[in-house]
Amino acid sequence: MGTNRLESFSDGVIAVAITLLVLGLNVPQVSSPHSHETLAHALLRNWPQDAAYVVSFLTIGIIWINHHVMINRLREADHSILILNLLLLMSIGILPFATSLMAAYLRQSRGQSVAAAVYAGAFLVMSIMFAALNRQILLNRSHMLAPELALEQRRRILNRSRTGLVPYVIATPLAFVSPYITLGICAAVAFYYALPIAGGIERRSSNTR
Amino acid sequence: MGTNRLESFSDGVIAVAITLLVLGLNVPQVSSPHSHETLAHALLRNWPQDAAYVVSFLTIGIIWINHHVMINRLREADHSILILNLLLLMSIGILPFATSLMAAYLRQSRGQSVAAAVYAGAFLVMSIMFAALNRQILLNRSHMLAPELALEQRRRILNRSRTGLVPYVIATPLAFVSPYITLGICAAVAFYYALPIAGGIERRSSNTR
Amino acid sequence: MGTNRLESFSDGVIAVAITLLVLGLNVPQVSSPHSHETLAHALLRNWPQDAAYVVSFLTIGIIWINHHVMINRLREADHSILILNLLLLMSIGILPFATSLMAAYLRQSRGQSVAAAVYAGAFLVMSIMFAALNRQILLNRSHMLAPELALEQRRRILNRSRTGLVPYVIATPLAFVSPYITLGICAAVAFYYALPIAGGIERRSSNTR
Amino acid sequence: MGTNRLESFSDGVIAVAITLLVLGLNVPQVSSPHSHETLAHALLRNWPQDAAYVVSFLTIGIIWINHHVMINRLREADHSILILNLLLLMSIGILPFATSLMAAYLRQSRGQSVAAAVYAGAFLVMSIMFAALNRQILLNRSHMLAPELALEQRRRILNRSRTGLVPYVIATPLAFVSPYITLGICAAVAFYYALPIAGGIERRSSNTR
Repeated sequence: MGTNRLESFSDGVIAVAITLLVLGLNVPQVSSPHSHETLAHALLRNWPQDAAYVVSFLTIGIIWINHHVMINRLREADHSILILNLLLLMSIGILPFATSLMAAYLRQSRGQSVAAAVYAGAFLVMSIMFAALNRQILLNRSHMLAPELALEQRRRILNRSRTGLVPYVIATPLAFVSPYITLGICAAVAFYYALPIAGGIERRSSNTR
Repeated sequence: MGTNRLESFSDGVIAVAITLLVLGLNVPQVSSPHSHETLAHALLRNWPQDAAYVVSFLTIGIIWINHHVMINRLREADHSILILNLLLLMSIGILPFATSLMAAYLRQSRGQSVAAAVYAGAFLVMSIMFAALNRQILLNRSHMLAPELALEQRRRILNRSRTGLVPYVIATPLAFVSPYITLGICAAVAFYYALPIAGGIERRSSNTR
Repeated sequence: MGTNRLESFSDGVIAVAITLLVLGLNVPQVSSPHSHETLAHALLRNWPQDAAYVVSFLTIGIIWINHHVMINRLREADHSILILNLLLLMSIGILPFATSLMAAYLRQSRGQSVAAAVYAGAFLVMSIMFAALNRQILLNRSHMLAPELALEQRRRILNRSRTGLVPYVIATPLAFVSPYITLGICAAVAFYYALPIAGGIERRSSNTR
Repeated sequence: MGTNRLESFSDGVIAVAITLLVLGLNVPQVSSPHSHETLAHALLRNWPQDAAYVVSFLTIGIIWINHHVMINRLREADHSILILNLLLLMSIGILPFATSLMAAYLRQSRGQSVAAAVYAGAFLVMSIMFAALNRQILLNRSHMLAPELALEQRRRILNRSRTGLVPYVIATPLAFVSPYITLGICAAVAFYYALPIAGGIERRSSNTR
C-alpha cells in the first residue's frame, strides 16, 4: 500500500480527534434560578477545562507534525505498519475522553489524582505507540525507507522518540502527589515542542504528493 | 467517476465514525455527594465501554484497510458502485451507536442480550454490505478493474469476503446465550485480522494518487 | 482558486455531517428501575429515528455524488462559487439537527407536524442552494467550464436540478396533513435516486486529481 | 515540509469545526407534560442559536477561503509556520463552544453580556492568530513564497489582515452595552465578506495539487 491514503486517513482521524476536544468545554448553567454565580465566575472557575483543552490540542498537533515526518520517510506501508498506525490512532482517538475526565475532576476533592493519572497515562500510551511504530519503520522495515538512512541516523531518530516518553513516565505517578504538577509537566512538554527552541522538524526535502 | 474522490469521501466518513467512538466513553460522575464510589472503581466498572471501544476501533480500522484494497482494484466507479459504497458507509456510520448501546447494557441485568445482538448484528450488516460491494466490483463490473484479474482469482477474493461474515452470523444469536461470548467472538475477529498471522493485505503495486 | 481544495473541503464537511447523523440515535434508557419496557421494545418504538437516519444518510450521500459531478465540470472557482458552495454546505450541515428533530417528534402527539415540516423544509433549502450554485456555474460562469457545454445541454442539466425541488415543495406543507406522508415522500426521493432506474451520474471522463 | 499535508490537515480541522456547530442547535423539549409551549414557538424562541449558527458558519467559511489563499502563497512550511497554524486552528476549534455559549445566553437576563463578549472575543483571537501567521509568512518567511511578492504588496496584504481585526475589537467591549449590537457587528462582518462587494479573493493562478 502506498503511504498517501495512510496519511490522509491518519490526518482525518487526528483532525477529528483534535476538533472533538471542544466537546469537553461545557456551557455553564448559571441561568437556573438556583444559581447565584455569574457567568464570568463560572467560566473562570472552569479554567481546568480550558487548560486541558489547550494542552491536549497542542500535544495532538505536535504528534500530527511528527507523524507526518515519520510517515514521509516511507516509500510504502505493509500490514504491520498499518496495524501499528491504527493502534497509534486509537490512542490519539481516546484523548478527548481523557481530556474531559481531567477537566471534570481537576478541581474536585475526590478523583482528581486518578483523573490526572489517566490524562498523563493516555499521553504516555500515545507516546509508546508512536515509538513502537517508529521502531518498526526504522529498524524492521528500513528497506521501505526512501531515501535510505544510515543505521546510526535511524537509531538517533528512534532515541528521540523514546526520550519523548520520559516526561509522561514521570508525570503519571506524580498525579498522586499533585494533579497540578501532572498538568504542568504535560503543558511544559507541549510548549517545549511548540517553541522554536526544540529545533522542531528535521530538514528534509519534503515530498509533495 | 474516478475513484479518487470516492476514496477520499469514504476515508472521511470512516475517519469520523472511528473517532466518534470516543463519545461512547462517558466521564463517570462520582463527585456528586450521593456517590460513595471512587473514580478508580467507576472507571474499572466501566470496562465494557473500553472493551467495546477497542473492538469497534480495530474492526472499523480493518474495514478501512480492506476498503482501500477493494477500491484500489478499480479504475473507475459507476452509479451502482457509488450507491453500494454509500450503503457500506451507512452501516459503518451506525457503529458508534451500536458500540454505545453495547457499552451501556453489557453489565445490566436487563437488555444485555439484545444490546449484544445489535452490536454483532451491526458488524454482520457491515460485512454483508462489504461483500455485496465486493461482489458487484469483482463479478458485475470486472471490466472496470485495473489490472485485470482472472475469474478464479476474483472468486477467491470474494470467498474471503464471504468467510468474514461467518463469525458474526454465529456471534449474533449467541448473544441470547451470553453477551460476553458475543463480545469475545467480535474481539477475536478483530485481533485475528490485526495480527500478522492473517497474512493481511495482498501485495499489489499500490497506485499512488 | 482551483477546484481541488474546494472539493476536498466540501467532502470533509459532507462526510462529517453524514456521520454526525448517528448522534441522533439515542441509546434508550430501560435499565432504570422505573422502566417496565424491554430494550427490544424500546429500540422498535424508536423506529422513527432509524427511518430518519436512513433517509437523511441516503439523501446527503446522493447530494455528495451530485456535488462531485457539478464541481467536476469546473476548471476553476471564483468568489461567487465559493460563497454559494458555502451556503450549500451550511444547508447540509444543519441536516443532523433537522433529522434529530424529526426523530424526536414523529411519534409525539404534539409538534410532529412542525418537526416534519422542518425536516422536509431543510431538504428543500438544500435543494434550492444546490440549484442556485448549479445555475451560477452553468449560466453565469459558463466560461469556467471544462470541457465547454452547449447552452442547450446546460439548460437541461439545470432543469434536472430544479425538478429535484418539486418533491420537497410538496412534502413540506403536507407535514400538516400527515408527517408520515412527508417522511414517505423524502424516503421515496432518496430511494429513487439510489436505484439504478434514475440513470444516475452522467458518463463523463472523470478528471482525476 | 510541503504545504499539501498542512492544507489537508487544516481543511480537516476547519471542516469538522464548521460542522460541529450543528451540535449547538438543541432539539427543544415540548413533549413533556409540563410544557405548554408548541414546538413552533419553541423553535422561534430559539432564534439566537440559529443566528449564532449562521454567523459562525459564514465566518469560519470565510476564514477557510482566506486560509487557502494565505497558504497557497507558500512553497514550503517550517516549524514556526506549522505552530502558528496550529494556534490558528485551535482558535477556530474553540468556536463551536463560543457559539453554543452565545446561543444559550443571548436571551437570558443574566450572563448575556459575558457570553457575547466571549463570542466576539473568540473571533478576535482567531483574527489575531490569522494576522500573526500571515505576518510570519509575508515578513519573516518571504523567501518561502512562490511566486515572490514585492515588499509593498506583502505589506498591503498584511494591512488587510489587520483591518479584519477592527470590527471585533469594537464588538467585544460593546457586548456590555448590548449583546445584540455585538451579534449584529459579527453578522455584518460575515455578510460583508460573503458579498461580492468585498472583492474577495485575489486572482492568482491557482496551483492545483
